[in-house]
Amino acid sequence: MIKAGIVGGTGYTGVELLRLLAQHPEVVITAITSRKEAGMKVAEMFPSLRGRVDLAFTTPDEAPLKSCDVVFFATPNGVAMQQTRELLDAGVKVIDLAADFRITDIAEWSKWYGMEHACPDLVAEAVYGLPEINRDKVKGARLIANPGCYPTAVQLGFLPLVEAGVIDTSWMVADCKSGVSGAGRKAEIGALYAEAGDSFKAYAVPGHRHQPEIRQGLARMAGHDVGLTFVPHLLPLIRGIHATLYAKLTKDVDLQALFEQRYAGEYFVDVLPANGHPETRSVRASNLCRIAVHRPQGGDTVVVLSVIDNLVKGASGQAVQNMNILFGLAENMGLTQIPVSP
Amino acid sequence: MIKAGIVGGTGYTGVELLRLLAQHPEVVITAITSRKEAGMKVAEMFPSLRGRVDLAFTTPDEAPLKSCDVVFFATPNGVAMQQTRELLDAGVKVIDLAADFRITDIAEWSKWYGMEHACPDLVAEAVYGLPEINRDKVKGARLIANPGCYPTAVQLGFLPLVEAGVIDTSWMVADCKSGVSGAGRKAEIGALYAEAGDSFKAYAVPGHRHQPEIRQGLARMAGHDVGLTFVPHLLPLIRGIHATLYAKLTKDVDLQALFEQRYAGEYFVDVLPANGHPETRSVRASNLCRIAVHRPQGGDTVVVLSVIDNLVKGASGQAVQNMNILFGLAENMGLTQIPVSP
Amino acid sequence: MIKAGIVGGTGYTGVELLRLLAQHPEVVITAITSRKEAGMKVAEMFPSLRGRVDLAFTTPDEAPLKSCDVVFFATPNGVAMQQTRELLDAGVKVIDLAADFRITDIAEWSKWYGMEHACPDLVAEAVYGLPEINRDKVKGARLIANPGCYPTAVQLGFLPLVEAGVIDTSWMVADCKSGVSGAGRKAEIGALYAEAGDSFKAYAVPGHRHQPEIRQGLARMAGHDVGLTFVPHLLPLIRGIHATLYAKLTKDVDLQALFEQRYAGEYFVDVLPANGHPETRSVRASNLCRIAVHRPQGGDTVVVLSVIDNLVKGASGQAVQNMNILFGLAENMGLTQIPVSP
Amino acid sequence: MIKAGIVGGTGYTGVELLRLLAQHPEVVITAITSRKEAGMKVAEMFPSLRGRVDLAFTTPDEAPLKSCDVVFFATPNGVAMQQTRELLDAGVKVIDLAADFRITDIAEWSKWYGMEHACPDLVAEAVYGLPEINRDKVKGARLIANPGCYPTAVQLGFLPLVEAGVIDTSWMVADCKSGVSGAGRKAEIGALYAEAGDSFKAYAVPGHRHQPEIRQGLARMAGHDVGLTFVPHLLPLIRGIHATLYAKLTKDVDLQALFEQRYAGEYFVDVLPANGHPETRSVRASNLCRIAVHRPQGGDTVVVLSVIDNLVKGASGQAVQNMNILFGLAENMGLTQIPVSP
Repeated sequence: MIKAGIVGGTGYTGVELLRLLAQHPEVVITAITSRKEAGMKVAEMFPSLRGRVDLAFTTPDEAPLKSCDVVFFATPNGVAMQQTRELLDAGVKVIDLAADFRITDIAEWSKWYGMEHACPDLVAEAVYGLPEINRDKVKGARLIANPGCYPTAVQLGFLPLVEAGVIDTSWMVADCKSGVSGAGRKAEIGALYAEAGDSFKAYAVPGHRHQPEIRQGLARMAGHDVGLTFVPHLLPLIRGIHATLYAKLTKDVDLQALFEQRYAGEYFVDVLPANGHPETRSVRASNLCRIAVHRPQGGDTVVVLSVIDNLVKGASGQAVQNMNILFGLAENMGLTQIPVSP
Repeated sequence: MIKAGIVGGTGYTGVELLRLLAQHPEVVITAITSRKEAGMKVAEMFPSLRGRVDLAFTTPDEAPLKSCDVVFFATPNGVAMQQTRELLDAGVKVIDLAADFRITDIAEWSKWYGMEHACPDLVAEAVYGLPEINRDKVKGARLIANPGCYPTAVQLGFLPLVEAGVIDTSWMVADCKSGVSGAGRKAEIGALYAEAGDSFKAYAVPGHRHQPEIRQGLARMAGHDVGLTFVPHLLPLIRGIHATLYAKLTKDVDLQALFEQRYAGEYFVDVLPANGHPETRSVRASNLCRIAVHRPQGGDTVVVLSVIDNLVKGASGQAVQNMNILFGLAENMGLTQIPVSP
Repeated sequence: MIKAGIVGGTGYTGVELLRLLAQHPEVVITAITSRKEAGMKVAEMFPSLRGRVDLAFTTPDEAPLKSCDVVFFATPNGVAMQQTRELLDAGVKVIDLAADFRITDIAEWSKWYGMEHACPDLVAEAVYGLPEINRDKVKGARLIANPGCYPTAVQLGFLPLVEAGVIDTSWMVADCKSGVSGAGRKAEIGALYAEAGDSFKAYAVPGHRHQPEIRQGLARMAGHDVGLTFVPHLLPLIRGIHATLYAKLTKDVDLQALFEQRYAGEYFVDVLPANGHPETRSVRASNLCRIAVHRPQGGDTVVVLSVIDNLVKGASGQAVQNMNILFGLAENMGLTQIPVSP
Repeated sequence: MIKAGIVGGTGYTGVELLRLLAQHPEVVITAITSRKEAGMKVAEMFPSLRGRVDLAFTTPDEAPLKSCDVVFFATPNGVAMQQTRELLDAGVKVIDLAADFRITDIAEWSKWYGMEHACPDLVAEAVYGLPEINRDKVKGARLIANPGCYPTAVQLGFLPLVEAGVIDTSWMVADCKSGVSGAGRKAEIGALYAEAGDSFKAYAVPGHRHQPEIRQGLARMAGHDVGLTFVPHLLPLIRGIHATLYAKLTKDVDLQALFEQRYAGEYFVDVLPANGHPETRSVRASNLCRIAVHRPQGGDTVVVLSVIDNLVKGASGQAVQNMNILFGLAENMGLTQIPVSP
């Protein structure tokens, strides 16, 4: 059994990790930390876990993290980078669900995240954990930078097009919509039901931290820098991301075949039949990404629709997928739940 | 492996049965029927099942129902009673998720359901499939009347009180609230998002079909007739029932202990600690019923709060639980999913 | 024109007061205070008011409250009682939307609100501003205790029954459901979309501050103390309260006629035809209360359904209604908006 | 007083017209027709109108439409074109809220709407009723083609850019999101709460009828044909459209000033301060369009965010605005309601 620890388990990615790991046949959760809630039973905070997770939160100091096989950081940005080296030195694999190790350009990272980086060398070592692109690198890694939620949906949507070189990568648009759980379990006015409910808006149009992460990913696929406009929106629902992607085609190509071939062997990526429209609920509570590709009225524009559950494939599920790869387990172990719909 | 057939799989209880059975380690689904959609792939209608359920709907005539070990009826009321005898004669166990076999008093049934009953003798034989009350009878049954959604939540909530004889059973109130999926997957104005969303109302206050079913169940527990006012309401959410139950205490009793003892061995009934308030989301997509019991300000009124997922413990999950009992499997096999929250 | 001031205008009752007063033909808003947001334009916080309300928040000290004709307190409990005497002394009418002056029994008030009362004599003077009961007293008042949201819906629902003496007032049940805006515009985890959305729960079953307020009101109608169980629930919607009321009939009476006669002259109370089921959306954004009365299956139980918009008839609209009465205006002036539905 | 008739008043645009016209100081509604519901009181179908609209539905034949001053068609596509000539001949002004007169190219119209046009000459005469562009033509018209909901939000968003000639009009993107009421009050599975709730999807990506309408409008502004990709999505909310518009800038220009100047005199168009993000709720139940313009990170992409209430500025409110212009009334008469928020 793999001994897993969770640092910072009081947020939505934390409870989702608990849901997935508690049902994983090869994992035993040995520690979950929260400085603020130390002593409280996890199931007291998250009643959905009553009878299934008997742990209590402990302080990071008391938690047996160094004797874990893997530690997940479900913490705010800037925490994992303080504690990762010590864990790696103790032989623990680290999977960071926050952004500390996602962006290779340290200056760029500092600009967007507003702090100095504590360990640039570990950024260089970390593997960007999007298995559909980086599976082989994940296998041998010590430290995984688990991708952001928007970046997962957008990169998987653009991937076949960019790899095949069939679009103009200098001017791409990613119009993305996320459920409210993406904002985390923080007491903020803007995330109140009476504020975010029955309404819809864009946010962070001048600039959002996931834009450089996505651009970096697309540039790696393309082999050169790309131009990307990324606009996130807040949906009045809890779980789900829908990315609507636009690009100009530069080559005539069978788009449907291109996508189906690229993702033929991927358990977690489902290419819908031609003219499909994936719904976020069709992946709810699962680690799937469903994708449809369109060429409206046969013109020169390609439109890709990509949906994930932001808490699963966009966070905790992908983290477990990465863990499975790290430890040589079946990649979908503990992640085969059928989506909950309706 | 148990060969399972589903008659009428195009509704919400149908797709939920598919979700649960497709993940059940001892079941293979061999037939699913829909006269109207014959020929269509199930996963075309329910994209959440893509890659997991490869069946197509067939007409009832073509379906190999008689070679099944068990057949679930997820049909409108009045269908199962037409086909059950033939299946029983062929040695098939039958679980009816509709109301055809729930009410023993045939005249009462006809009054509420507006039709003649096709097989009163089978009503007499059928076992009311609320395992927490009827487990032993379910074991040896051929035909299970799967309880209604409201009746499940209400009966489990009142059960310890009525069995212990500590309330006035002549005047009980069940104020119940259900998510919209309880209305089924039917194209009706009242169930449109723009009608049922962002609003709340009671319905069927003059009389609802679940009232006689609940009253029958409570009367059996009590050993005599009871007085029950039942008011259902429509919640602007998809899954979930919350029953708020009121009765007058006739004996001084430790309510918390009474409930904990009654449900001590029940995997699917979770009694919250004193002063708890169960949320419907804490059982979402699971077969659990969570219950809290209160005595506000120490007065003579007992208030019970009981929540279930109407599609799982209130329908398809309970049907699978009954199937497990019928076939001697662990009662919770295939039903151990942790609730999805948030 | 009536010069109106608002103390504490950053919450939902504050913005709703602004919406109503800005459209009122006889009112000019001359001051709105917020210690925390002083200097900020009101329309910056509430973009729905852009172009219609040009005021900025000021500190209470700078605000010309004493030169107002009327001051509304849309503040947390315990604020109005500190400032009311000074305003009354200056000849200003005061309408408190919080609970400072609602409960006559000072000890009871202190028990539920957890503080000493600053001015018990003013509690004695204050008029409980439920116009359908207290219209005449409101006319001559200086200080109005604007009723709570639940108390408004429940009292209007029970009123005809209690006044007519046709129910057993020793054991009444009020099962109430409120939209999330009732919790106010406060950054609290429990009111987040990802917590309160797609879910439903009861809260405060052991005791809620509105219970003594309702009981006091019912007792005044009855002329003696009453027994009331009050259970509030949180609805996944923004505006709306639905009260479902239960009592035992002690006299045979034409309930429909009783309700229609009692509310015959009331502009803001609409008795639905027999067997009706009012929806919360049918009063959305209006000052109406719609009521239906039932006697299920002709038994001895009366069920009343009463709906209001908690921010309008349950708070700010009723405050404006009281203001209209105080100043001799038509009672419905500025309050004739047709509900917004769907 | 203007005598107004409504043909086909049983849908959401119908009830919204009733809400607005019943509060309009210069209008009396003299007829509302519905073949199917003839005889039923309007307020029975729409309880929000109880006490305010006393009319009953009548058949079109019985309705005194020819003695109206103006008739609104709130009918499915293809109805108005059958009845308009007769009304115009009788001197009645006609405002069609459907699409019969919106597209000048008859062949194009037939292709998208799947029927022959009954009166191409009237299409030529009809004025496209987007007052912010066509106010002068509306003034003298007999027949108004009231714009579609998406076309209103998109055209108002692109208008300043296209008129000023500062974007590449050969490749524009309109990523649009609409609340469910846009689908109308029709009993269809896809619009059920349990289908459309808690989920999000694109639809009609291969082609949507509003695309040619928008393209026609943009082409008129530009003076030449344009390239437009239009992708509509379904939001889990009732009212509201959010259009997110993308184009490539071809000239360096002060975008904020451009928008503010273009809409300086427009009562119903509100340009937010720089870096704003309009929410759909900020226009709920009002005739406003709120717009923000962005140039992310100073690049060559302009992003416009445009929100309306699809039932008001996107349908019935705009129809009333057109009526006001037709009859020489203040353009905002009866349309000054402050948005309902939260």
